[in-house]
Amino acid sequence: MDNLALCEANNAPLTPITFLKRASECYPNRTSIIYGETRFTWPQTYDRCCRLAASLLSLNIAKNDIVSVLAPNIPAIYEMHFAVPMAGAVLNPINTRLDAKSIAAIFRHAQPKILFVDRNLETLARATLHLLPDEEQRNLLVIFIDEPDRPKRISSNDQLDYEELIRRGEPSSSSAARMFRIQNEHDPISLNYTSGTTSEPKGVVVSHRGVYLSSLSVIMGWEMGKFPVYLWTLPMFHCNGWNLTWSVAARGGTNVCIRHVSAPEIYKNIESHGVTHMCCVPTVLNILLQGNSLDMSQRSKPVQVLTGGSSPPTALVEKVQRLGFEVLHVYGLTEATGAVLFCEWHDEWNRLPEKQKMEMKARQGVGILALADVDVKNKKTQESVPRDGKTMGEIVMKGSSIMKGYLRNPKATSEAFKHGWLHTGDIGVIHPDGHIQIKDRSKDIIISGGENINSIEVENVLYKYKKVLEAAVVAMPHPMWGETPCAFVVLEKRKTGQGDCDDQFMTREGDLIKYCRENLPHFMCPKRVVFMGELPKNGNGKILKHKLRNIAKSLVINDDNTIGIKH
Amino acid sequence: MDNLALCEANNAPLTPITFLKRASECYPNRTSIIYGETRFTWPQTYDRCCRLAASLLSLNIAKNDIVSVLAPNIPAIYEMHFAVPMAGAVLNPINTRLDAKSIAAIFRHAQPKILFVDRNLETLARATLHLLPDEEQRNLLVIFIDEPDRPKRISSNDQLDYEELIRRGEPSSSSAARMFRIQNEHDPISLNYTSGTTSEPKGVVVSHRGVYLSSLSVIMGWEMGKFPVYLWTLPMFHCNGWNLTWSVAARGGTNVCIRHVSAPEIYKNIESHGVTHMCCVPTVLNILLQGNSLDMSQRSKPVQVLTGGSSPPTALVEKVQRLGFEVLHVYGLTEATGAVLFCEWHDEWNRLPEKQKMEMKARQGVGILALADVDVKNKKTQESVPRDGKTMGEIVMKGSSIMKGYLRNPKATSEAFKHGWLHTGDIGVIHPDGHIQIKDRSKDIIISGGENINSIEVENVLYKYKKVLEAAVVAMPHPMWGETPCAFVVLEKRKTGQGDCDDQFMTREGDLIKYCRENLPHFMCPKRVVFMGELPKNGNGKILKHKLRNIAKSLVINDDNTIGIKH
Repeated sequence: MDNLALCEANNAPLTPITFLKRASECYPNRTSIIYGETRFTWPQTYDRCCRLAASLLSLNIAKNDIVSVLAPNIPAIYEMHFAVPMAGAVLNPINTRLDAKSIAAIFRHAQPKILFVDRNLETLARATLHLLPDEEQRNLLVIFIDEPDRPKRISSNDQLDYEELIRRGEPSSSSAARMFRIQNEHDPISLNYTSGTTSEPKGVVVSHRGVYLSSLSVIMGWEMGKFPVYLWTLPMFHCNGWNLTWSVAARGGTNVCIRHVSAPEIYKNIESHGVTHMCCVPTVLNILLQGNSLDMSQRSKPVQVLTGGSSPPTALVEKVQRLGFEVLHVYGLTEATGAVLFCEWHDEWNRLPEKQKMEMKARQGVGILALADVDVKNKKTQESVPRDGKTMGEIVMKGSSIMKGYLRNPKATSEAFKHGWLHTGDIGVIHPDGHIQIKDRSKDIIISGGENINSIEVENVLYKYKKVLEAAVVAMPHPMWGETPCAFVVLEKRKTGQGDCDDQFMTREGDLIKYCRENLPHFMCPKRVVFMGELPKNGNGKILKHKLRNIAKSLVINDDNTIGIKH
Repeated sequence: MDNLALCEANNAPLTPITFLKRASECYPNRTSIIYGETRFTWPQTYDRCCRLAASLLSLNIAKNDIVSVLAPNIPAIYEMHFAVPMAGAVLNPINTRLDAKSIAAIFRHAQPKILFVDRNLETLARATLHLLPDEEQRNLLVIFIDEPDRPKRISSNDQLDYEELIRRGEPSSSSAARMFRIQNEHDPISLNYTSGTTSEPKGVVVSHRGVYLSSLSVIMGWEMGKFPVYLWTLPMFHCNGWNLTWSVAARGGTNVCIRHVSAPEIYKNIESHGVTHMCCVPTVLNILLQGNSLDMSQRSKPVQVLTGGSSPPTALVEKVQRLGFEVLHVYGLTEATGAVLFCEWHDEWNRLPEKQKMEMKARQGVGILALADVDVKNKKTQESVPRDGKTMGEIVMKGSSIMKGYLRNPKATSEAFKHGWLHTGDIGVIHPDGHIQIKDRSKDIIISGGENINSIEVENVLYKYKKVLEAAVVAMPHPMWGETPCAFVVLEKRKTGQGDCDDQFMTREGDLIKYCRENLPHFMCPKRVVFMGELPKNGNGKILKHKLRNIAKSLVINDDNTIGIKH
């Protein structure tokens, strides 16, 4: 077999940017974006992205520069998922639920060249900039995104505005045409922070190749046919909306963008636009229950819902399905470039009793096609566990869709990739039917409303409170958010030798929570602080978090937000 | 952005072999193959392929060695699509409709190390080997595939038999484990001949990466959900069965293998196994009409049929759909690693009048997701034609799913890839809605029953007939095969000066056809030979084939195989 060389005709880099050009050519009459009264077709979206990319180049954006965006699910952040990489730059979508301090930490780490800000988040953005050193502030170009129907605010500081960039972009210029061609599919396309706090922000770098494969995998895993009408209930700043940003373009679908996720907003959009698909964290399933069921006489099929971030409670899935939704459970992580396990349904399972059926639905499932391998391995021996549904091990995976690594953090990168696998930290089993189920999540992560909270980061803040001697944070159940942090704290003994009375503890609990809210994003703050004489520890002095978790489990937050004991 | 290195965890070669391992792990209880009374599950198929691969290695098969197979759609040829590349070798599936001479030409060009032969094709194989020089015969190891239920024939020459290889394979041996890992996704996986004749066989080399992307593209283009029951009505030797060999594994589906394609066989299998999908050339649609319609009360959906190879006549599609099939038309070529344009259906089109709807259905469609670009270009200027449905140009494409090139034919390879695009030779238009439609096929290709016939090759054989002065071969319509070759011949003037009378021509037509059948595969032989005093030519002496095509179009072959004139 002689050596056949690769050439332009048979070796194009894999990049999701091709999906957009293809959509504009293959689906010229289809609606790409709906947002309030705004409508775009795929050729319009392609044109706007080309113009924006050209404008970015004219602002001297160079290859691999970081472009950050702070915005909810409005059309601009969707467009940036194509336009920024078209300019050779790397998109950095920021969690809008973070506080100024956390975002500033991201900026210090990522060193973005441009920040796009939704006008409604101006206060947060200005507070963040305020925390940056003068030089960094000067180096960061801030561009605001105004609502299309709102009169443009003119102020001396707002030199540049998003729509102005699109208007003046000249995609036909030679430099633009040159840059639009991605040279290497392993180049970074997005930088997604897994935790945005003061301590150590971890920036996950994903590649064109990785998101291309992940975008196709979610289409296949979800069996998403052509022309979906996709409702944006999952933030695009979460793993690029689990890659649906790109998948919807690949399918020639319609993106229904919404600013706020509420039951009336969701049901209104489903009705008006014939929504067929949506993704969300289990918390949003709760929100769906606050609305009416869908009028199925008007619909040929239920709305397909992909849910993940944490395992959805089976009772919740059951209730939501009765309203006219079909729920598919997935498991993913930012480091694996989105959803990697899909709970693929076998028709035979429909004959199972309802309870067992819902238990099947809550399992994490089987690996996507983009992965080369998924396994559950004994943490010590690194050997595969038997597929018996009982033996536990760590869920590991490998393949071209996995992240490139953590930005400027070789230690964390090599730790994540040791033994040639991505280590998820999640403990699970493999059932004889091939489905993986998580049995114990990575100890230090609390998932609240789909947001990962690293308990160690909350503990670090607590430790800085001068009266705190020891602190341990674990998950406690929450009716709305699934989980919420619960802190166990040992205070320094008072010099005066006074005993700790309940009354004082109550005051202190309020103080500590207030202190946390001043130093952490609100969703990360403990909803409950339990004071103890000492924390339970093993012989080596290691805090036994499972004991604390058991205590936390017995505490419940009532619907009126008071705390009670579970019976 | 610092340099993040690729490693084993995040950079696995793209190869369809992973689909098989995944199927065995994710779908352990599902049936992989049904063939008569034979049943395999995915773990069994994986095990058999590993064993076969190990046996190939023990036979000293080295990287990039060619392994040929001459077999209809039996389980063995399916297994070889995984086992041969697992051993690092390149699969060469041979068209069983070729004659010994054509196959021998392929062997001389491809230099295979092993030939697997279905026992029922033993005579053809022995005739082929007979045509090879002694040394080449000695270097080629021939292994027969016997029917599982048939008693094994013992003869001194049949040292090796397919099932014996599987029995004795030891996949756990260290050399096997090493080889099963593909190192480079650009490595060749299959060698598919586009024409297997004496003159110049063209061996299309496709890569692991190319077929991986094409396999996923056909899943998405066809919207093929999980667990299809796939009936093998398309030969696997045609572009690896348009990559469905690998796609069905990716989907955890069931392969229903059949030896012969006939109406009773197709309907029997659809009934017994709940077939959901099948691919075929339009000729098979004709065969479907010879059977009963499907009992749709027993089925939730029509059988999905992917058809291509040539444009299906609209009346035919209409009739077949009424029987309970849903036809999707695709366009592909071996050089593009299978189907590349899908006639994606828009629901709005259902409201069109039936005739117009069927015309939409006959268009070639839009490019698959694996392609980086598809276009229609003016052949002279290489500029894109306007998307007006009128302006014609050559259909060209580029992307990672395109072939690596032609084996040992750098001239043809560089010709195919000139200007950085794969040139299909097919002339078409782009409609304003983005769909491509072929208006004029590459002049020299006749498509008969889904087989491409290069008219030049037939002419070359005719020219060798001593009395032939000039010959030109073009397509004529055929009720069963779509097209069939029609030859126009000018004979040498007899020295004796006698005039050519009709009676003589009749004799000569029979002689020439008989001569062709002795020197060409039967499907390539002209069904009609028209004698002329001279061939129509332009000023430069070039034969005007379009004039001949017009004459050929007016000739029709009746259902009783006689020839008439179209009115």
